[in-house]
Amino acid sequence: MKAVGIIVEYNPFHNGHSYHLQASKEAAKADIVIAVMSGNFLQRGEPALVSKWLRTKMALLGGVDIVIELPYQFASQKAETFANGAVSILDSIGCQSLCFGSESGDISSFLKTVDFIEMNKHTYDENIKSFIQTGVSYPKALSLSFQAMSSTNNLVDLSKPNNILGIQYIRALKQQKSPVMPLTIKRKNAEYHDEHFATETIASATSIRKALFSPTMEQTSINQYVPVETSQLLKEYHEYFGTFHEWENYWTLLKFRILQSNPEELRTIYEVEEGLENRILAVALESNSFRGFMEKLKTKRYTWTRLQRMCVHILTNTKKTEMAKFSEKASYLRLLGMTSCGKEYLKKNKSHLSLPLISKLSAYKQKEILLDIKATQIYSLGVGNQLANELIQQEFKQPPIIITKER
Amino acid sequence: MKAVGIIVEYNPFHNGHSYHLQASKEAAKADIVIAVMSGNFLQRGEPALVSKWLRTKMALLGGVDIVIELPYQFASQKAETFANGAVSILDSIGCQSLCFGSESGDISSFLKTVDFIEMNKHTYDENIKSFIQTGVSYPKALSLSFQAMSSTNNLVDLSKPNNILGIQYIRALKQQKSPVMPLTIKRKNAEYHDEHFATETIASATSIRKALFSPTMEQTSINQYVPVETSQLLKEYHEYFGTFHEWENYWTLLKFRILQSNPEELRTIYEVEEGLENRILAVALESNSFRGFMEKLKTKRYTWTRLQRMCVHILTNTKKTEMAKFSEKASYLRLLGMTSCGKEYLKKNKSHLSLPLISKLSAYKQKEILLDIKATQIYSLGVGNQLANELIQQEFKQPPIIITKER
Repeated sequence: MKAVGIIVEYNPFHNGHSYHLQASKEAAKADIVIAVMSGNFLQRGEPALVSKWLRTKMALLGGVDIVIELPYQFASQKAETFANGAVSILDSIGCQSLCFGSESGDISSFLKTVDFIEMNKHTYDENIKSFIQTGVSYPKALSLSFQAMSSTNNLVDLSKPNNILGIQYIRALKQQKSPVMPLTIKRKNAEYHDEHFATETIASATSIRKALFSPTMEQTSINQYVPVETSQLLKEYHEYFGTFHEWENYWTLLKFRILQSNPEELRTIYEVEEGLENRILAVALESNSFRGFMEKLKTKRYTWTRLQRMCVHILTNTKKTEMAKFSEKASYLRLLGMTSCGKEYLKKNKSHLSLPLISKLSAYKQKEILLDIKATQIYSLGVGNQLANELIQQEFKQPPIIITKER
Repeated sequence: MKAVGIIVEYNPFHNGHSYHLQASKEAAKADIVIAVMSGNFLQRGEPALVSKWLRTKMALLGGVDIVIELPYQFASQKAETFANGAVSILDSIGCQSLCFGSESGDISSFLKTVDFIEMNKHTYDENIKSFIQTGVSYPKALSLSFQAMSSTNNLVDLSKPNNILGIQYIRALKQQKSPVMPLTIKRKNAEYHDEHFATETIASATSIRKALFSPTMEQTSINQYVPVETSQLLKEYHEYFGTFHEWENYWTLLKFRILQSNPEELRTIYEVEEGLENRILAVALESNSFRGFMEKLKTKRYTWTRLQRMCVHILTNTKKTEMAKFSEKASYLRLLGMTSCGKEYLKKNKSHLSLPLISKLSAYKQKEILLDIKATQIYSLGVGNQLANELIQQEFKQPPIIITKER
């Protein structure tokens, strides 16, 4: 059985994702699709709309065959770290290829770009350093450095977040000497960050979330952009828990944690760069909402996303020393769910997996997975007190979700 | 001008307190009454019903002339530490006497008891150690040790919390070689812990709080036990903030802080004794309320009060290393309020004060006071998000409360 790997967040699963996974399967001539999916906290430093279990269900109903959790140590991270973790998982589970969406749909321009960067690595890195010294953010410096060097037209536009991810996937594959082949398909939907509905059936996850949180918009307004299963599952979750998860649900917890810390303690938290700690304390003291806090905290130097990721680490109390201990590659495969085809694949390939496959949490006690458990516990506190414990318990009791499906 | 000192919490101020302060003034033949009052967290390890500022107003309207805050480092502490801090403040502000309430009203029995303990200190301490090894709590061991030694009838009953405090006040005065003279008056009200209304006008603060939190009891039911000003101020506070402060208001914050910690980190918190950290983590995980948490956490070894104090320190993130640095005596006098008489007293005695008198927070930046500020910030989060900031700001902006009063 041939497997194609994809790297996803599904926040929430929508028609664009459905298209992406079918097209990936075709492009790779694969029998099954394996998704590495961020857990409860996402790459942009946000809590996921709904729990990883519900997003797994959406994924399986939408056509994915196996869902593996991208561990916390890789999930709320810059593109490079995120890519390293995700790629190492797809490699170890035996995918023949990795297929990502891009504006161009042209893999050769990606391969060329990676080669170009590697050949000019020294200049590239030096340029990045110089741009950072001018006070711009890291992603901006990356893009500017690249622009300053590249004159040929066949290279990828590194000012687009999705392209940066694509480049990082390929760099990670090379670096890890992985046999997994990179593929790309042309994205059908709007720009990644687009907040407005763009076409008749495809909209960005950002615009869908915006609609879900809008007090004036009916939830049904998203129906044309998501599979009926997504719509139904979102509705049930919201009815049961009374809320979707968003940063404002965690604002009092974040503020509390900041106010109970002194600058020295804050500085031990991962991503709290020297000098930021006093600013965080002062701004938290006078803010009444997460949005207000972020707007005051934001500078030219740090992107919104970068600061949000830092806030996730403050919330989960993740220390610099802790993260420094971890390897650049994943050390386990946490199985969140599978279809009957996915099950068949795992049965056949069991003996070839290069990492332990975890179906039951109680059976495994590595340091890294404790971080996932903690993240889930904290994430659970985003719903009311009584219901939070249900989400907490689910982490320990939920076996992988299985969807029976005709091949 | 002659000043008598009293040590109070006023949670809330009631008729028993009113009686105590008048009787103290008479017994001491004093012109004014100076109260050392716990800030927002109290000796039994609880958040105060209402802020220290409102309780200061109650105290001044009830007859106290000067209110000084007992710093956090002494407030949520065992009797000995609590007494050391409070006594050092009364001494440094120039009180001639300290008057406390007791069951007997007989100071000679207290003095005798203190002498007896000191003469038999070695046996006393050895006994305490032995009793602790049998698994009982520290206060219980103290009382049992004492019982095992004393056969004479003229000694004080150390199984009563108020008597223990009295004894500790006298020991602190002796230890600090203070010229402040100890006095006691007979308590008029019910037992300290009594949860039921006892007489027609005097009730314990515990029973008053119970009535205030009872969903079925009207707030007016407390009116016969408290001065009209207390009743009015409580009503206004509750109407404005929508709540009184109680542990349940802080439960999600406490749970969050526990769940985001690992055992090693929990063990750095003051009063988290070795071995307790894993228990705290396990119990927090399965609890949905502070009460439920405490009931599961409670053992014969630790009193409810002792564990509640520990929870206060987890909430405020107060470390063992931090507390170890502090002196046994207070290092500043934080003035919360005064009457015109109190003002006159301070004016006359200004030059004799042995500690800095702080009226404006911005003027003073000692380590110890940072702990009070932090405690207030955390305490403030016990009301809704928007209103919390008002309580936080008050800590910096509120000048001492002044009540004009005829002499």
